[in-house]
Amino acid sequence: MGTSAAVNQIYAHFSHMTGRFLSVRRKTEDLCLPLTDEDCCLSVMEETSPPKWHLAHSSWFFERFVLQKFKRGYESYRPEFDFLFNSYYRRLGSFVPKFKRGVLSRPTRDEIYQYRHFITESIMGLLETIKPEDEGKLLKALEYGINHEEQHQELLLADLKRNFFENPLRPQYLGQVFSHSEISENKWQTFNEGPVKVGIPIEFQQFSFDNEKDQHQVWLERFQLASHLATNDEFLAFMDEGGYENPRFWLTDGWDLKEREKWEHPIYWEKQGQNWWTMSLSGMIPLELSAPVAHVSFYEASAFAKWKSARLPTEAEWETAARLEKKVGVFLENGPLEPIPSQENHQVFSQIHGSVWEWTQSSYRPYPRYRPVSFGMTDDNEKSMCNQFVLRGGSCLTPTDHYRVTYRNYAYPQMRLMCAGIRLARDL
Amino acid sequence: MGTSAAVNQIYAHFSHMTGRFLSVRRKTEDLCLPLTDEDCCLSVMEETSPPKWHLAHSSWFFERFVLQKFKRGYESYRPEFDFLFNSYYRRLGSFVPKFKRGVLSRPTRDEIYQYRHFITESIMGLLETIKPEDEGKLLKALEYGINHEEQHQELLLADLKRNFFENPLRPQYLGQVFSHSEISENKWQTFNEGPVKVGIPIEFQQFSFDNEKDQHQVWLERFQLASHLATNDEFLAFMDEGGYENPRFWLTDGWDLKEREKWEHPIYWEKQGQNWWTMSLSGMIPLELSAPVAHVSFYEASAFAKWKSARLPTEAEWETAARLEKKVGVFLENGPLEPIPSQENHQVFSQIHGSVWEWTQSSYRPYPRYRPVSFGMTDDNEKSMCNQFVLRGGSCLTPTDHYRVTYRNYAYPQMRLMCAGIRLARDL
Amino acid sequence: MGTSAAVNQIYAHFSHMTGRFLSVRRKTEDLCLPLTDEDCCLSVMEETSPPKWHLAHSSWFFERFVLQKFKRGYESYRPEFDFLFNSYYRRLGSFVPKFKRGVLSRPTRDEIYQYRHFITESIMGLLETIKPEDEGKLLKALEYGINHEEQHQELLLADLKRNFFENPLRPQYLGQVFSHSEISENKWQTFNEGPVKVGIPIEFQQFSFDNEKDQHQVWLERFQLASHLATNDEFLAFMDEGGYENPRFWLTDGWDLKEREKWEHPIYWEKQGQNWWTMSLSGMIPLELSAPVAHVSFYEASAFAKWKSARLPTEAEWETAARLEKKVGVFLENGPLEPIPSQENHQVFSQIHGSVWEWTQSSYRPYPRYRPVSFGMTDDNEKSMCNQFVLRGGSCLTPTDHYRVTYRNYAYPQMRLMCAGIRLARDL
Amino acid sequence: MGTSAAVNQIYAHFSHMTGRFLSVRRKTEDLCLPLTDEDCCLSVMEETSPPKWHLAHSSWFFERFVLQKFKRGYESYRPEFDFLFNSYYRRLGSFVPKFKRGVLSRPTRDEIYQYRHFITESIMGLLETIKPEDEGKLLKALEYGINHEEQHQELLLADLKRNFFENPLRPQYLGQVFSHSEISENKWQTFNEGPVKVGIPIEFQQFSFDNEKDQHQVWLERFQLASHLATNDEFLAFMDEGGYENPRFWLTDGWDLKEREKWEHPIYWEKQGQNWWTMSLSGMIPLELSAPVAHVSFYEASAFAKWKSARLPTEAEWETAARLEKKVGVFLENGPLEPIPSQENHQVFSQIHGSVWEWTQSSYRPYPRYRPVSFGMTDDNEKSMCNQFVLRGGSCLTPTDHYRVTYRNYAYPQMRLMCAGIRLARDL
Repeated sequence: MGTSAAVNQIYAHFSHMTGRFLSVRRKTEDLCLPLTDEDCCLSVMEETSPPKWHLAHSSWFFERFVLQKFKRGYESYRPEFDFLFNSYYRRLGSFVPKFKRGVLSRPTRDEIYQYRHFITESIMGLLETIKPEDEGKLLKALEYGINHEEQHQELLLADLKRNFFENPLRPQYLGQVFSHSEISENKWQTFNEGPVKVGIPIEFQQFSFDNEKDQHQVWLERFQLASHLATNDEFLAFMDEGGYENPRFWLTDGWDLKEREKWEHPIYWEKQGQNWWTMSLSGMIPLELSAPVAHVSFYEASAFAKWKSARLPTEAEWETAARLEKKVGVFLENGPLEPIPSQENHQVFSQIHGSVWEWTQSSYRPYPRYRPVSFGMTDDNEKSMCNQFVLRGGSCLTPTDHYRVTYRNYAYPQMRLMCAGIRLARDL
Repeated sequence: MGTSAAVNQIYAHFSHMTGRFLSVRRKTEDLCLPLTDEDCCLSVMEETSPPKWHLAHSSWFFERFVLQKFKRGYESYRPEFDFLFNSYYRRLGSFVPKFKRGVLSRPTRDEIYQYRHFITESIMGLLETIKPEDEGKLLKALEYGINHEEQHQELLLADLKRNFFENPLRPQYLGQVFSHSEISENKWQTFNEGPVKVGIPIEFQQFSFDNEKDQHQVWLERFQLASHLATNDEFLAFMDEGGYENPRFWLTDGWDLKEREKWEHPIYWEKQGQNWWTMSLSGMIPLELSAPVAHVSFYEASAFAKWKSARLPTEAEWETAARLEKKVGVFLENGPLEPIPSQENHQVFSQIHGSVWEWTQSSYRPYPRYRPVSFGMTDDNEKSMCNQFVLRGGSCLTPTDHYRVTYRNYAYPQMRLMCAGIRLARDL
Repeated sequence: MGTSAAVNQIYAHFSHMTGRFLSVRRKTEDLCLPLTDEDCCLSVMEETSPPKWHLAHSSWFFERFVLQKFKRGYESYRPEFDFLFNSYYRRLGSFVPKFKRGVLSRPTRDEIYQYRHFITESIMGLLETIKPEDEGKLLKALEYGINHEEQHQELLLADLKRNFFENPLRPQYLGQVFSHSEISENKWQTFNEGPVKVGIPIEFQQFSFDNEKDQHQVWLERFQLASHLATNDEFLAFMDEGGYENPRFWLTDGWDLKEREKWEHPIYWEKQGQNWWTMSLSGMIPLELSAPVAHVSFYEASAFAKWKSARLPTEAEWETAARLEKKVGVFLENGPLEPIPSQENHQVFSQIHGSVWEWTQSSYRPYPRYRPVSFGMTDDNEKSMCNQFVLRGGSCLTPTDHYRVTYRNYAYPQMRLMCAGIRLARDL
Repeated sequence: MGTSAAVNQIYAHFSHMTGRFLSVRRKTEDLCLPLTDEDCCLSVMEETSPPKWHLAHSSWFFERFVLQKFKRGYESYRPEFDFLFNSYYRRLGSFVPKFKRGVLSRPTRDEIYQYRHFITESIMGLLETIKPEDEGKLLKALEYGINHEEQHQELLLADLKRNFFENPLRPQYLGQVFSHSEISENKWQTFNEGPVKVGIPIEFQQFSFDNEKDQHQVWLERFQLASHLATNDEFLAFMDEGGYENPRFWLTDGWDLKEREKWEHPIYWEKQGQNWWTMSLSGMIPLELSAPVAHVSFYEASAFAKWKSARLPTEAEWETAARLEKKVGVFLENGPLEPIPSQENHQVFSQIHGSVWEWTQSSYRPYPRYRPVSFGMTDDNEKSMCNQFVLRGGSCLTPTDHYRVTYRNYAYPQMRLMCAGIRLARDL
């Protein structure tokens, strides 16, 4: 490739990244349009953060890892923000503990927006004046920041739903209308034994997180995977047959937790008279039987699978199947922020991309030849690689551009905050 | 007294109560003027409630105990408010638990204000149309509601201070300037033994809470009471002499708590370099050495007293002394919402009214012939009469009209939320 | 009094004390005769200590406060015992925390007995060689140690009952047979208003704890006191009328605790089929309806009183009544270690001495002119004077010689370990 | 094989099993010889059980799963033992919760031994009279019971060590003398990439637990494994270089736990003056620098590995290496119940069998085609397959006969109770 072609390519990349940057920044703010000032300050549990914090933290990230690194003589917008909006990056010094984020009635929403706009404009200014030798690194950092902000878009909505659920009024974030669908039938798809490739090659240029690397070989035994996600209807059947009362179905740790916290159904479900309702970002809505069950923990997913005489897939099994489907599905931009019934726009595996994160039975551990990549930025992913399970596939709250088939999300087995559901597998 | 004189008297009483009602309602809202919408939603611990909740709850109280009782055919403003803004009144059904009040980003501040104004106007309308036979009861209920709202004015500010303290920015509620004063000297005042009268006679007409009744006789032994409140200067000396490190000074329960929670100074104090600062409603301010120490728990007060070879007074001792001073002092309306140095405008006992609540060594227990008075309203005071100590004297956050010399406040010995200080006593 | 008379008197006192010492030492060991080695090591909760610890600690007390102080050149029996068997005496340095006492499988029971006998003999040797000028102090220390060991005799049995109750086999400590009695009727006894004297004069020679001093005057209003203790029969009626389900009867702190710990009856009660049984030191026995209710907390006692439209007495009221009865009753030495029905061997107040400790409504606070007396020995009583209530009257587990009418026991309102019951009072 | 040869083979098998049964039963009792009655009752934390419970529970297991199943008309020795000595087998009904096992001062040690002997003799009687068609099943059940009792032999000693450690006297279980050795040097052994076989084939006759099956293929990348276990000397170097203070080395969950529980060294280590000591079953002994570090949690092992720029092996890597060494090492029967320095009696991998359990980085999850095998006996292994990591290799407390190279032990990452150490691996 000749020099000018290379320059052109960098320029194209540059221009593309600038566009993505502006669009991501705008979208985070758009997501907050329906919120009152009070909503922006809302967080009543340790697991969640208030919208205002997400708004500020995603800006702080650009300030800390782009502006402070690449803009000569850059001075902090307000030094105390470094303390307030740092999150878990222990290496960077102290920070406001998560359970205290709800205390930030000040700085006000307006002040946060001023901060955002200052950061966005400073980055744009920086891009115009960047030295050629820094371009590569800068683009990498920018790309990381964009992906980071996209993660927080999903968290912002998931956290909001959880906190709104605590309010006895069950407020609406938006006023969506849902329509009913027939339940389409699950079919078992068989895969033969043999070696498969999992993950992204280390040398690959496309953005990905360090935990998706290195591509490596895994030997799969013969197995079957469900064409469809488990539905609310099926989960109700599990409940009706005593699923929450029978220790036979449950992992011991899950059973003990369930007993202690008195779980009797998925977190957002509520029975009113004879009918089940569920919390959504449109407030309480009637439970759509043909929609995928959502917001279940690994423990619930695993008990359901056992009741079905099946199991959860490994992530290698899941990835092998998902590579057969194009990335089409219900994501943040094209859906009602809630899983909906199967739309039958797939080859074999319905809703394998988008809709709900799918629990795998794989512990979240490093791939072979894993190298933590932090480029000085953050605590690396490796620190979290304990006690968590991998989730795959993206959800109706995930930004489309953020997701790819190798994407590894992860959560503790008790977590029900993220929009997670179930696709079954079984041995032959 | 002739009939028309009686009518006139009732009318005067009526007119006076109407005036107090409007003024109290207005004042609560005035107290919230410096707050942002986000501040109004702020409460990050179980011990406190957000300003919006205080605004709404004090209205709910009038709705529930005046409008619903005296206004024929009255319908709830919004039925769900009965659930949201009921507090601890178990007899009236379920309610939002205290630690969840911070979740109420909705209803918004505007909606709460509309609610307040609706209630205020409805009460005013009711007063114009009340039937003569209900007048007496109505006035009693109204008076109770007014006193109740005054209590919440103090709580609103104390809670706000506590929550602002959690914010690393330490926001200001108002921008007060404090001036320095010399420390005036404490003198011990001697009282001889003999019988004294404590409390308010049951038949007394003036408003008081049930816990101030019945007036009864107590035998006092000879004792001395300090003319002045313990100052920050004296408390620093206690700290400098290892007050927080020496179990000899402490009650066992207090020591164990102090160790567990790692107390090393009063809650709002903070050392910056060589100097001590303290949280106030004007943000962090330099510690004024000659001002009374404030926001100490019973445990700290008691350890300080022991270190001084003194003790805390009983409430009978305190009341006997306080009756010698007119009700002049620093209250909500005439001070900087913070205790200030002694102003020497007293006969013998400086700042015995206002400034800081004064811990007594008396457990909060019923007076002889105590009769719980709830007039169907509330959980009676008796239910709290366990494990708490009596505080006397009002504070710089107490509305002047709310306070009288027989007033019994109370708190658990570990509490540091209310603006409480120390006046010493000793045996002879 | 002539010199030789004085000498004779000291000698008589001396000889009496020696006798008491030997008899107390023997009795503690006799109480352990029915126990296996494993029982002696048993303690499975923080509130209790194992028998072996009581055996050793009461010896350690004599070693530390008598032998080490009065025996020239005395060397510790085993230095590590100072650490193992010190209890809460913070001033004397570190100690094994209470919840760890169950860990002491070593030293073995035999080693503990050797320790006991060594101490007993050393004390006896000391008494023979004591210098005349030390005699007074020594006797005081010895007397304190004797009283201390008597306290631990009661604790040993109460702790054992609690721990045996945790064993699903509900072992027997002894095999007592209980006979049935008719219920004798309660009568209300009226007392007129006026001043009474409470406590023991400071200058009094007879042994008493510091918390019983100084005698002082209290003004009583007219009141009535129940002639009989509340019975199991009456307590069952309270339960049958929803006593444990109705918040109206309960102090708020008590209600919250009861809900949290799911109390539905006194701790040792258990329903088998249609009949109630209760844990005793003879294992599970049928509940004797006419016996006094026992092992209730202050919260339960207070709720029961409220249900009866009565209240608990103050300790001044109780002491005034108890002075009318001779010290006759069911104590450790003359009963089945369990409260039994009223024996009608009283003037007016049945079982006011012995049987069960009687909850008063008085917070455990110092008497006027209280002076902590530790003679260098212990943490003084004053440190505990917070959050506890006074219990009066001794119990069926209290050594007779240990008790007197001014004796003040105390406990936190939630405690159900000691054998405590209810005598009601009411206003007129 | 002719009939008589088959009969002979069964008979030989039978006779072998009988011998193992008697020998295992005797050994458990032999292990308790050095214990006092009080020691046998000792358990002061939820994680451990008292020796008496292990003695009884391993008998109960034979009663419940052999005698009750195969002996016609068998009646329980004492029905309450079914409740007392059942452990976690939820399917079989209720049981004494683990934290309460320390309460069982009764039944006494003597009663437990009578129970043991009754069960042993009943089994022997049963073996003589068994019907031919039951022989196969009976032998399987017996073998399971023998392996179960062997597991409890290790637990008994590990629990005892933990509980003795709580006693400030640090009692000795036995009086072993340890001799010093030179530190032998670790070498990295390289393995090439390729497929390996892991686990035991399902059809295999030799006893194994269900979690070791089915044998399956795993693809290994090139890696290196340490020839020697990490030593105390190396772990001290980790500590000296701030291992416990630097979050960089730690998994987030581990760091948080370490901070909360204030870990600063392995659980049994204690510094006295300049020297480190460690708790052993011979009481406190000087830390032998060349011995393998033991009783470390997964978190500590993982931090140590990170500090060494290495990692823990996967279980497939470990098993591949361990198959190269014969089963020779320090086990329960041939060592001082404590890891000792490398004896150089190996080919390549020192102490890979015995000495200490070796943490792997593999989450404890089912092998492909795993089928829970409970033969009606127990909760299956599958219920535990969450949140735990696999340990391999046996320890100095493991009975030799109990262990094989495919054996999978497992524990939560925070556990330090079992004698577990570290063998490092690294990528190439």
